[in-house]
Amino acid sequence: MTTQGQITVALLGGGTVGSQVARLLGESADDLTARVGIPIRILGVGVRDVTKARDGIDSALITGDLEALAMSGADIVVELMGGIEPARSLILAAMANGSSVVTANKALLAEDGATLHAAAEKYGVDLYYEASVAGAIPLLRPLRESLAGDKVRRILGIVNGTTNFILTKMDEQGADFAEVLAEAQALGYAEADPTADVEGHDAAAKAAILAGLAFHTRVRMSDVYSEGITKVSAQDVAAAREMGFVIKLLAVAELCEDEKGIVVRVHPTMVPRNHPLAGVRGAFNAVFVEAESAGQVMFYGRGAGGAPTASAVLGDIVAVARNRVAGTRGPGESIYADLEVRPIGEALTRYYVNMDVADRPGVLASVAQAFADNGVSIQNVRQDGHGDDAGLVVRTHIARDSDLASTIEILRNTDAVRSVVGVMRVEGEDGR
Amino acid sequence: MTTQGQITVALLGGGTVGSQVARLLGESADDLTARVGIPIRILGVGVRDVTKARDGIDSALITGDLEALAMSGADIVVELMGGIEPARSLILAAMANGSSVVTANKALLAEDGATLHAAAEKYGVDLYYEASVAGAIPLLRPLRESLAGDKVRRILGIVNGTTNFILTKMDEQGADFAEVLAEAQALGYAEADPTADVEGHDAAAKAAILAGLAFHTRVRMSDVYSEGITKVSAQDVAAAREMGFVIKLLAVAELCEDEKGIVVRVHPTMVPRNHPLAGVRGAFNAVFVEAESAGQVMFYGRGAGGAPTASAVLGDIVAVARNRVAGTRGPGESIYADLEVRPIGEALTRYYVNMDVADRPGVLASVAQAFADNGVSIQNVRQDGHGDDAGLVVRTHIARDSDLASTIEILRNTDAVRSVVGVMRVEGEDGR
Repeated sequence: MTTQGQITVALLGGGTVGSQVARLLGESADDLTARVGIPIRILGVGVRDVTKARDGIDSALITGDLEALAMSGADIVVELMGGIEPARSLILAAMANGSSVVTANKALLAEDGATLHAAAEKYGVDLYYEASVAGAIPLLRPLRESLAGDKVRRILGIVNGTTNFILTKMDEQGADFAEVLAEAQALGYAEADPTADVEGHDAAAKAAILAGLAFHTRVRMSDVYSEGITKVSAQDVAAAREMGFVIKLLAVAELCEDEKGIVVRVHPTMVPRNHPLAGVRGAFNAVFVEAESAGQVMFYGRGAGGAPTASAVLGDIVAVARNRVAGTRGPGESIYADLEVRPIGEALTRYYVNMDVADRPGVLASVAQAFADNGVSIQNVRQDGHGDDAGLVVRTHIARDSDLASTIEILRNTDAVRSVVGVMRVEGEDGR
Repeated sequence: MTTQGQITVALLGGGTVGSQVARLLGESADDLTARVGIPIRILGVGVRDVTKARDGIDSALITGDLEALAMSGADIVVELMGGIEPARSLILAAMANGSSVVTANKALLAEDGATLHAAAEKYGVDLYYEASVAGAIPLLRPLRESLAGDKVRRILGIVNGTTNFILTKMDEQGADFAEVLAEAQALGYAEADPTADVEGHDAAAKAAILAGLAFHTRVRMSDVYSEGITKVSAQDVAAAREMGFVIKLLAVAELCEDEKGIVVRVHPTMVPRNHPLAGVRGAFNAVFVEAESAGQVMFYGRGAGGAPTASAVLGDIVAVARNRVAGTRGPGESIYADLEVRPIGEALTRYYVNMDVADRPGVLASVAQAFADNGVSIQNVRQDGHGDDAGLVVRTHIARDSDLASTIEILRNTDAVRSVVGVMRVEGEDGR
C-alpha cells in the first residue's frame, strides 16, 4: 500500500500549523522513521499564495496547484487550510485517489462529517482529525479507543481558548467583556473579527465532533444549541465569585435519562471553584468526561497554537502511516447508536437567576410561586435590600431547561420583579 | 485469525477487577459487538479458589485450571491475577499459543516487560496494558500513539492513590503520617500491609512503564530511584503550606540536558499550589506531560478501583479485538531510542531544606558557604529566631541532585546547624 518503502505526505496549507508540521517532519525525521518503520517524505506543500515566504518550508516543495497535490497519490494528504471549500473537494478527491487524510478542519467535520466519513469508508482509507478539537490534547483517540469498552454519560469541555482567556481575565480583573476583548485582541488571543469564538460557534463545532465520538451518533453543528459570552457582565462574574463559582464557556454533551437521546449545548456556565474545570485558566483547554465505569476523567492542555496543533497532526500522521505499513485502517466512524439529538429544552439543568425586585412583603412569595408553577425546585435564595429595591438571587435544583426558561419568562412579566439582571446555567455541582 | 465470527476471551483472575470485566462484557455485549463488528464471548474465568462465590460471574465459566484456560486458544487472554508467577508463565504460554494478551500487571511489566514484549513480537500477537498505570485514565495509548509525532521532555505523575489520599488528608487536617495511615486503612484506601504503596514501590513500577513508553527506552523497576512518604512529617506539610506549596508523591521521568539519558525517580515533592497537579486530591491520579510541541498536557482520573480499572481493560479488549478482526496488530514495543537510564544524582532538581540552627552571627554565612562550595545557588532564605535557636529554611535554584545531596551531608556536619529537620525536592516551579 505504501510507495517504495516510504510514506509520502502532501500538505495542503502552509500557514501557522502547516509550517510547523513541515518543520517537525524534517527535524524529527529519524525519530519518526524509527516509530513508523520506514521514512516519511513530504511530496509538496500546497498554498494559495506561492510568493509568500514561509518559515520552515523548503521553497522547492511549495506549489500553488492544490488539486494536483491532492491527487498526487500521496499515502497521506494532510489538510490544514480550514473552511468548507475547497478543503472538502480536495479531501474527497484525495480519498477517491486512495490517499488517507489527516485534517484539523473542525468546521468542515461539524458541518459535513458524514460525507467525509462515507468517502473514507467507500475508498477504504483513514480519516484522522485529532487536531480538530482541543489542539494538542490527546482527546479523540482516548474517546474513540481507550473508552471503547465503557459508556460515556456526559462531557463537559472548555474547548475554546479565546473565550477562556477572556473569562479568566474578567474573573481576575473584575473587568467587563468589551474591555478584556480589546486586550485579548491586542495580545493576539482573539481575532480582529472575534465572532466565531465569542458567539460560541467554534465551541459548537467542537462539541458536535466530541459528542459524535462519545455517543456513537452523528451530530451536526446545527444540532448544537449555542450561546456566546458577549452578554456575560462584570456583575455576573462578581456574583459567581461571591457564591464560590467561576464562569466558563462550556460545551456540554450528555445522555438523556431515557438513554435514547442526547443534548449538545454550548453556553456560559457557572462552575464551582473546587471543580477540576474551574482551575483551567487562560488559553488552556480541558475536557471532563464522565463514563459509567471509568468515572470522572479529565484531559488538559493547550487548545490552539501552531506547535501544539502540529503535535496532534503529527500523531495522526504516525498513526495513519503505521496503518499503511501494516496494510490496515484505524477504526472508522462509529454511529451505530444513532441516538436522537434533542433540543436544549429537554436538557436537565440548574439555573442561577439574579433579579432586581421591589423590597416589600410578598415579593419572595410571588417569585417562589413562579418557580413552583413550572415544577422547578429552589435550592438557594439570597435577598439583599438596598433602599426601595432588593437584589434577589435564586439557584435552582435540577429541572428541565424548558421549564426553567418558562419560569424566567414569567418572572420577566411579574410586577414585583423590576428586572432579571442575570440568568446562567450551573454545572458541576454534586458531581454533575 | 478469529474463531468462527466471534472474539473469544479467557479471563485469568476473578477478583475485584476480573468480576467487573466479566460483568461489563455481559452487560455491554450489544455495544461491544457494534464497536468491534462481531460478538465477544467469554470462554472461562480462571481462579485459584473455585469454591468462592463471585458476583457477576456465571458460575459455569469458573475454572481452577489456569493453564488449560491460558492454552484454550482464546483470541485474547486477559491476565488480572497480579504478581510475577504464575502470571508470567501463563501469559507466555498463551502468546506461544497465538493468543493476544491484555494485562493490568504493573509489577510484572516493570520487572520483566522485556520477556513479555519479546514473546509478543516472536508470536505476532498484541500485548496491551493500559490498566497497569493510573487505572481508568487513558494514558498509555495517548503516550504511545497521540504523542507519537512529538518529543516528550518530562513526565510528572501522581500515580498512587493511597499515598495521595494520605498526603491530601495530612494537608487538610495537619495530621501526622501514622494517624492518617490508620484512617486510610480503616476506610479501605490503604492495605493492611501498606508497604508497596507508602514506600513508593507501586509508583516506581508505574514510573518505569510510563518512562519506557515516553522515551522509547527499556526501563526496569530497578532503574527507578524510589523514596516513600513514611518520613513526611506534619511539620513538612505545614512548612510547605506556609510557602504556598503542597507535598505530593511524584513519579518524575525526564530527559537529561544532553538528550542521551533519562532519570526516573519517585519521591515526596513540594509542588506550588497553583500547579495543575496540586489540585489532584484524595485517591485521584494525574499525569502531567511536557512535550516539545504539544507543551503541557495533563491526564486526570481515578487511578484504582474495580470499575475504573475494568474500563481500561475493556478498552484494551476492544482495541485488540479490532486488530484481530482486521488481521493486524497494534504498535509493538518501541525502545529504539535506547537512552541511558541514569542514577538520581544526575537529575537536575531543586531542594527545600529546613534546619534548626544556633541563633548567632555568622550562622547564615557558614550555611550559605556549604551551598556555594557545592556549586548550589540559593533562591530563597527565611530565618525565624526562637530563643537560642533559629529555624532556617532554604530553597535552592536548580542544581545536580548529587551536589544538593553533598550539601546536605556537609550541613549535617556543620557545628552551627543543630539539625536538618526537613529536606525535600521541589518540582513544578517556573514551568519545570
